[in-house]
Amino acid sequence: MSTATYTVAGMTCGHCVSSVKEEVSQVAGVTAVDVDLASGRLTVTSDSPVDDALIAAAVDEAGYEVKV
Amino acid sequence: MSTATYTVAGMTCGHCVSSVKEEVSQVAGVTAVDVDLASGRLTVTSDSPVDDALIAAAVDEAGYEVKV
Repeated sequence: MSTATYTVAGMTCGHCVSSVKEEVSQVAGVTAVDVDLASGRLTVTSDSPVDDALIAAAVDEAGYEVKV
Repeated sequence: MSTATYTVAGMTCGHCVSSVKEEVSQVAGVTAVDVDLASGRLTVTSDSPVDDALIAAAVDEAGYEVKV
């Protein structure tokens, strides 16, 4: 199992959290997604490591941005 | 035709705006709903005047509050 954390910018409410969770959950191999609104912390769990670019693309698709 | 304006507190993003629009649109007699996120201004158009309490209840249902 692999866990990676990211910081997401731009989320302001629970709807934003839901959007990010929904998109990131759809990335192949992802088994769990947790988002903390206050800190912007996104935790992604997967069977094997997932390319950061795929996670960033999913966050972008939701309308937000992974801080580098 | 009747138009009434309210100020809604707590909306932070476009998702919030959509939630308010959806709930207020379902109030009987309402024909159009406009929300300005920046100001929190909610404009409700209806065929005849709608009870403010019904609008406030719909906003509450969406998870926000009409400022008095």
